[in-house]
Amino acid sequence: MEDSFFSEVTDRIRFGGIDSTNPISFRVYEANRLVLGKRMEDHLRIAVCLWHSFNWPGSDVFGVGTFDRPWLDPRLEPMIAARAKLDAAFEFIRKLGVPFFCFHDRDIAPEGGTFRESRANLETMVAETETHMARSGVKLLWGTANLFSHPRYAAGAATNPDPEVFAYAAAQVKLMLEMTKRLDGANYVLWGGREGYETLLNTDIGREEAQLARFLSMVAEHKHRIGFKGTLLIEPKPQEPTKHQYDYDAATVHSFLARHDLDREYRLNLEVNHATLAGHSFQHEVAYAISHGIFGSVDANRGDYQNGWDTDQFPNSVDELSLAVYEILRSGGFTTGGFNFDTKLRRQSLDRTDLFHAHIGGIDTLARALLAAALMIEDGRLEKLRRERYAGWDDELGRSILSGDALFEMLAGRVETGEIDPRARSGHQELLENIVNQEIWSADQRAVAEAAQKR
Amino acid sequence: MEDSFFSEVTDRIRFGGIDSTNPISFRVYEANRLVLGKRMEDHLRIAVCLWHSFNWPGSDVFGVGTFDRPWLDPRLEPMIAARAKLDAAFEFIRKLGVPFFCFHDRDIAPEGGTFRESRANLETMVAETETHMARSGVKLLWGTANLFSHPRYAAGAATNPDPEVFAYAAAQVKLMLEMTKRLDGANYVLWGGREGYETLLNTDIGREEAQLARFLSMVAEHKHRIGFKGTLLIEPKPQEPTKHQYDYDAATVHSFLARHDLDREYRLNLEVNHATLAGHSFQHEVAYAISHGIFGSVDANRGDYQNGWDTDQFPNSVDELSLAVYEILRSGGFTTGGFNFDTKLRRQSLDRTDLFHAHIGGIDTLARALLAAALMIEDGRLEKLRRERYAGWDDELGRSILSGDALFEMLAGRVETGEIDPRARSGHQELLENIVNQEIWSADQRAVAEAAQKR
Amino acid sequence: MEDSFFSEVTDRIRFGGIDSTNPISFRVYEANRLVLGKRMEDHLRIAVCLWHSFNWPGSDVFGVGTFDRPWLDPRLEPMIAARAKLDAAFEFIRKLGVPFFCFHDRDIAPEGGTFRESRANLETMVAETETHMARSGVKLLWGTANLFSHPRYAAGAATNPDPEVFAYAAAQVKLMLEMTKRLDGANYVLWGGREGYETLLNTDIGREEAQLARFLSMVAEHKHRIGFKGTLLIEPKPQEPTKHQYDYDAATVHSFLARHDLDREYRLNLEVNHATLAGHSFQHEVAYAISHGIFGSVDANRGDYQNGWDTDQFPNSVDELSLAVYEILRSGGFTTGGFNFDTKLRRQSLDRTDLFHAHIGGIDTLARALLAAALMIEDGRLEKLRRERYAGWDDELGRSILSGDALFEMLAGRVETGEIDPRARSGHQELLENIVNQEIWSADQRAVAEAAQKR
Amino acid sequence: MEDSFFSEVTDRIRFGGIDSTNPISFRVYEANRLVLGKRMEDHLRIAVCLWHSFNWPGSDVFGVGTFDRPWLDPRLEPMIAARAKLDAAFEFIRKLGVPFFCFHDRDIAPEGGTFRESRANLETMVAETETHMARSGVKLLWGTANLFSHPRYAAGAATNPDPEVFAYAAAQVKLMLEMTKRLDGANYVLWGGREGYETLLNTDIGREEAQLARFLSMVAEHKHRIGFKGTLLIEPKPQEPTKHQYDYDAATVHSFLARHDLDREYRLNLEVNHATLAGHSFQHEVAYAISHGIFGSVDANRGDYQNGWDTDQFPNSVDELSLAVYEILRSGGFTTGGFNFDTKLRRQSLDRTDLFHAHIGGIDTLARALLAAALMIEDGRLEKLRRERYAGWDDELGRSILSGDALFEMLAGRVETGEIDPRARSGHQELLENIVNQEIWSADQRAVAEAAQKR
Repeated sequence: MEDSFFSEVTDRIRFGGIDSTNPISFRVYEANRLVLGKRMEDHLRIAVCLWHSFNWPGSDVFGVGTFDRPWLDPRLEPMIAARAKLDAAFEFIRKLGVPFFCFHDRDIAPEGGTFRESRANLETMVAETETHMARSGVKLLWGTANLFSHPRYAAGAATNPDPEVFAYAAAQVKLMLEMTKRLDGANYVLWGGREGYETLLNTDIGREEAQLARFLSMVAEHKHRIGFKGTLLIEPKPQEPTKHQYDYDAATVHSFLARHDLDREYRLNLEVNHATLAGHSFQHEVAYAISHGIFGSVDANRGDYQNGWDTDQFPNSVDELSLAVYEILRSGGFTTGGFNFDTKLRRQSLDRTDLFHAHIGGIDTLARALLAAALMIEDGRLEKLRRERYAGWDDELGRSILSGDALFEMLAGRVETGEIDPRARSGHQELLENIVNQEIWSADQRAVAEAAQKR
Repeated sequence: MEDSFFSEVTDRIRFGGIDSTNPISFRVYEANRLVLGKRMEDHLRIAVCLWHSFNWPGSDVFGVGTFDRPWLDPRLEPMIAARAKLDAAFEFIRKLGVPFFCFHDRDIAPEGGTFRESRANLETMVAETETHMARSGVKLLWGTANLFSHPRYAAGAATNPDPEVFAYAAAQVKLMLEMTKRLDGANYVLWGGREGYETLLNTDIGREEAQLARFLSMVAEHKHRIGFKGTLLIEPKPQEPTKHQYDYDAATVHSFLARHDLDREYRLNLEVNHATLAGHSFQHEVAYAISHGIFGSVDANRGDYQNGWDTDQFPNSVDELSLAVYEILRSGGFTTGGFNFDTKLRRQSLDRTDLFHAHIGGIDTLARALLAAALMIEDGRLEKLRRERYAGWDDELGRSILSGDALFEMLAGRVETGEIDPRARSGHQELLENIVNQEIWSADQRAVAEAAQKR
Repeated sequence: MEDSFFSEVTDRIRFGGIDSTNPISFRVYEANRLVLGKRMEDHLRIAVCLWHSFNWPGSDVFGVGTFDRPWLDPRLEPMIAARAKLDAAFEFIRKLGVPFFCFHDRDIAPEGGTFRESRANLETMVAETETHMARSGVKLLWGTANLFSHPRYAAGAATNPDPEVFAYAAAQVKLMLEMTKRLDGANYVLWGGREGYETLLNTDIGREEAQLARFLSMVAEHKHRIGFKGTLLIEPKPQEPTKHQYDYDAATVHSFLARHDLDREYRLNLEVNHATLAGHSFQHEVAYAISHGIFGSVDANRGDYQNGWDTDQFPNSVDELSLAVYEILRSGGFTTGGFNFDTKLRRQSLDRTDLFHAHIGGIDTLARALLAAALMIEDGRLEKLRRERYAGWDDELGRSILSGDALFEMLAGRVETGEIDPRARSGHQELLENIVNQEIWSADQRAVAEAAQKR
Repeated sequence: MEDSFFSEVTDRIRFGGIDSTNPISFRVYEANRLVLGKRMEDHLRIAVCLWHSFNWPGSDVFGVGTFDRPWLDPRLEPMIAARAKLDAAFEFIRKLGVPFFCFHDRDIAPEGGTFRESRANLETMVAETETHMARSGVKLLWGTANLFSHPRYAAGAATNPDPEVFAYAAAQVKLMLEMTKRLDGANYVLWGGREGYETLLNTDIGREEAQLARFLSMVAEHKHRIGFKGTLLIEPKPQEPTKHQYDYDAATVHSFLARHDLDREYRLNLEVNHATLAGHSFQHEVAYAISHGIFGSVDANRGDYQNGWDTDQFPNSVDELSLAVYEILRSGGFTTGGFNFDTKLRRQSLDRTDLFHAHIGGIDTLARALLAAALMIEDGRLEKLRRERYAGWDDELGRSILSGDALFEMLAGRVETGEIDPRARSGHQELLENIVNQEIWSADQRAVAEAAQKR
């Protein structure tokens, strides 16, 4: 295969500014630009994923692949193909200039005829990956195991009615957790692709929950045994491929973790499109996770509000993302997490360069959402108005209620006498929305102003 | 007002059999028919609700009321109107012949100019209700307080940013809990109509959750203080009237209860239409609640799969309900709960008799779903096939995993050697669905056969 | 390959009656049973489809195939594989005992390296199909061309921005229309799998509509030129694979046909799951098509109301289908159309026999819906109540309005004087729903009664 | 009542620029700023609606009104209340500084005890309205009749099963059309609030379509008879209040108009939230209407993608609106239409000033969408890339197909020889989306740059 796969892009992508006429340049994202005292790159911690972007041919349920991905040709020797794929992926990541990548075991190494062979393939390719990482400086945001593509997982992995499948999944996760440690991954993700059901008629959800809890406990035990320091993450999704998944949304996963004493071991990897498929705004899922101390990382993409499946498009709406980024900034930002582009090109975007357009657009969208969110933080009006709304809870009545001092009798007595007879107050929603828009529309106006003065 | 409001129905509704040409008769429901050794009435524990059926004029967001409900005329003296309403409601329930009813404080007694006046109104009307109950033998399935219609609750009750609203709600619930005890209610329900948010911009969801937890703890404390023996129930709903409700679905409420040590105090009151608005089948919500020991009662209605709001229609699909009733039967049936008709007539169903048609149809649907579910239990094929699917978990490997004896190393070792290398097995979904249909289609064929032989 | 693929089913499926304990038997469907004077088989005109049931390996977006379909092995010589597939398909159809099948060109014959080769493959396999049809007596309900799987159709066929793709599609449809004529197909279907858009940014919908209209006109012209007597059908679908399809729903296709003078040439092939994805009940789509004279045929399946993609499950709800079948019966029944099982096994239903379970359940569901609908027709109450509701339109006022005699002035005059001052009347929806349930629940009670008397 | 109702806003709202710290000022909207050579005000043609903003108390299905709208007090004499309402509305519109308003007959004048009395009330209030219009210079964008709130319309107006209701609606529309002419309205709107069905069981959709066609024809006839020069508009909506509305979406209404020869008489009034409830993007509905020559006007609002009912929120996403405005600009802009704020305050926004915040935010959003769309037009890249994609259709092959010269034989011949064998080409969706974002993010940077230079 070629020496350089993405030969149309000869160099690392540069920042060109909002006016740039070069489509292969960033309009907003500057890795070293300081925002609230931190580099953009360190705020966003962007990762490229190896599955959609390198391991998917552009197929869908109604048609075969359309993309130019020569390493997916089934006639190639699998390990030669795996090396070609990795070369192309690292060429792409290096030219894109982002600090992280993410992968499943099967994304970098082919499944062999036996588990032993699969393990050997993986170990070989992890060694190659180490070389690529050392050369490029690119780091691993997270690793994960593919427990959903092979027929053996048709009825789930940990929640399979056959304990042998549980065992097989355990072996696969054990190995991949060790490989993630070896590559110094910042996190390890569990996405329960088939941990759900097609019909309740053949499903015992109580039993399957117990299995899942056992599996996740074993993962945590093994993490500690091998001394892996990264964060364990669970990724909620409501449905698809199954009719109904056990990790439906943030609240459902939270419930599960808390009841099985796993909430100190796991954080959430939230995906935009999974949130909207579950009937929540992405901001809701982020705010829920943060307010309950289980926020971890983000799969940055977007869904299509008119389509009911996981379209995994590249994010392109600052309006949609700014408030979610605002919640993340308010909470102190990412620790081990980041924004991973779990995103698919449209099936017709079949030129090699389209992969750059897509990532550049997504990264610029996140960068601009970051600028808008930073303005919201600096300005402080949103937070001030929110705090004032709850001011009463810091007074005597509010404090006595929350402390447990006030009982029903006491409260009822003060209502009975007419001392307490509250009236509704405005929530000022539209005013708050106007403030948000002012920040979004102002984002980067300083850059524009500076550019104007330079001319 | 009239002596008899529902004068077209002169007597208690009778069982007429599947062939009955009298529209005001039951085709399936026979209170005393034994199913699995228990009377139908005792299985279903059906209740009429006083809000939609007596306190709603047939209005919607686009138009005023269409129904013939003379007691809703605002020109009437409120307590006279309240008495007329109660008379009509008990006339209806008596003629329908069901054992229970349900109400909010505001359904039976008007809000006064002060809390004290509201309390006096309620106490007066509770006394009248006692008389009606004694005369008719009708019992109270559950009571509840309306914490969502008055403007003071625009931003929620327990989760209001103003602690005075919390206090007002406390006074109202305290009183209504006492009234429910006085009427020997089997349950007390909390539905958080406005416990949610319109926008996260003015909302602190962590703070509001703490408020809600405090409120529910105080309810439980007061229950024990006054010696109320009924069950406390929470009713999940994902949205509407708010954009997003805190009691989104069964898993979310479960999470909340477990984290605040309230899961021994509360059970769930599940509504069909709320389940589907949350993206779940009703069967899912029932199965979830049962498998986690928090199932309580049911608001029996149905939604419209093409409409995205709470249509609260009368249930009419045996196909939709049979499997949910099957889950309930498998778990031993209702204890304090029952099927409450939280259902609205269509706005064009403006004849007085339409209220009978609607309830008769709904009750017959539940009765037939009960017969089908009983066949599934007696037949046992569904359960047998489900159990067999998980048989491996009762063997050595499965037991050692669940007990915690098997660690990743051990499992991985057996996979590594090739000893464990599982293959997918059929889930037989279509076969199971055929069995379900056989039971649904067979339901009551014995009655038909007996009727045929009598002729 | 084997002589007999479905060896577990040794004979043609028989009617076993509702009590049958043999899962491989019909409980309701009896081909020769007379319903409203016509054989069940002639009412339902059931077809097996060759794509989902024989040409799909059980893959989904997240995993590879799980089914036992040896002919899909890519290592086989394509024409040998095609013959094995056809053998298995006809063995299945024969054992199932239904009168029809349906297929795309690519379902029976592999695409060759050139168009000429593809044509030769198709002609060869059509000859084999003729032999199978002659031997089995199975007929072709409809043929169609696959214009969506190959990458050349990524941006549509007739609506492609490249006219060469239009030409290629024309060549493919021309050939397949001729093959359908040769096999004496009762219909020819056009499903515009990729006739839609992914983004309006690169799409000119006016221009693409003109292309589509031209294409459909050419199909009709060619039909007449070659003397094909079957019906041309268009199948609406709102989205998937594309973001938005041009043939969104019945009304949209109707609009398109009427504006391009094609409404005398085409009828609709309505699919249950496509109707619900478009936000309509299936009954709505059927009623719309019938009342506008464009009803043709049905793809019988069902969707999942909690999932937003085309699940294409086997129909299993008599409640859902009875009213649609009632509309079809009221309109006189199918002419050239029928019920085609455009249905997919669940991915875990990987035993060969599962394909029988699924079809048997679907056929029995349709049969029972037919019995219920026939009762509705015979009983006549539904129709009578509907007609009475509109009685006023047959009186003087109604007639004068519809004839155009009454003008605004005249009507306004009669309102102005108070002569006309109408009041709302009950729509009796719940009563009507009860009648429907009585018919559904009574369906086949005669059979039960007869069976009881025989014992 | 007060002399000045909105006393907190003492003057006409001014343009304050993007940095403005005054919440009661425009950040983007400047009526006289030239965009593509036309004043912003003349591009956007903004209207305030009298229903949601002045005639709705802030009630919802679960609670009574929360707003401070003294004229809605039922104890007031109706005509005195009507005058107070009109005073407040015109005070608001004048202070907001927009050129248009819209109303239903019942918004400005109370229904009387008889039609004659209702007519007299309306005529009186129209005279008052004339005075307000003359004094303020505010014009009428469109008038309409309320055919959905009164119980007589429970089963529809034109599509009612009772022809007397048709007659009553005719009288009401006749009068309101005349009043709209008298006030020199630019358009007259028909929104079929209850023109749909609750259940097909009591509905004859063919018959009701004929009634509707007759009604709309009579409206057009009367328009010409009285010499009204405005445009007749129909507003699509898929459902709510009914289960299913006849004017489902743009394509459905188009179909109806075309089949009844009404497509030269009517244009569409498209609403954002109605588009999304129907499963379409708003841009889709606009593009459809424009490409078919039936675009008229817009009800500017937004829905909530997580809620399934008509939330009618104020628009606040430039991302969502820019492409729709781009389509409008490309087509030459509004003629008689405009952006009407068919928008509801959130129920908690109960301060009088909230009505200003909401409108200001919505207007600024439209203004910024206009600036972004104008950049897209001026830049021309989007249009150029779209045109190039279809270039083949202007060559010989494309032209011969569209002209009808090329027949299936000819095309098939060229494919058969291998002369035509097309390959897929990239649709460049992500690149196009990046261009859109560049324009949105650049909008108004000139203003920022100018402001920077002034400092």
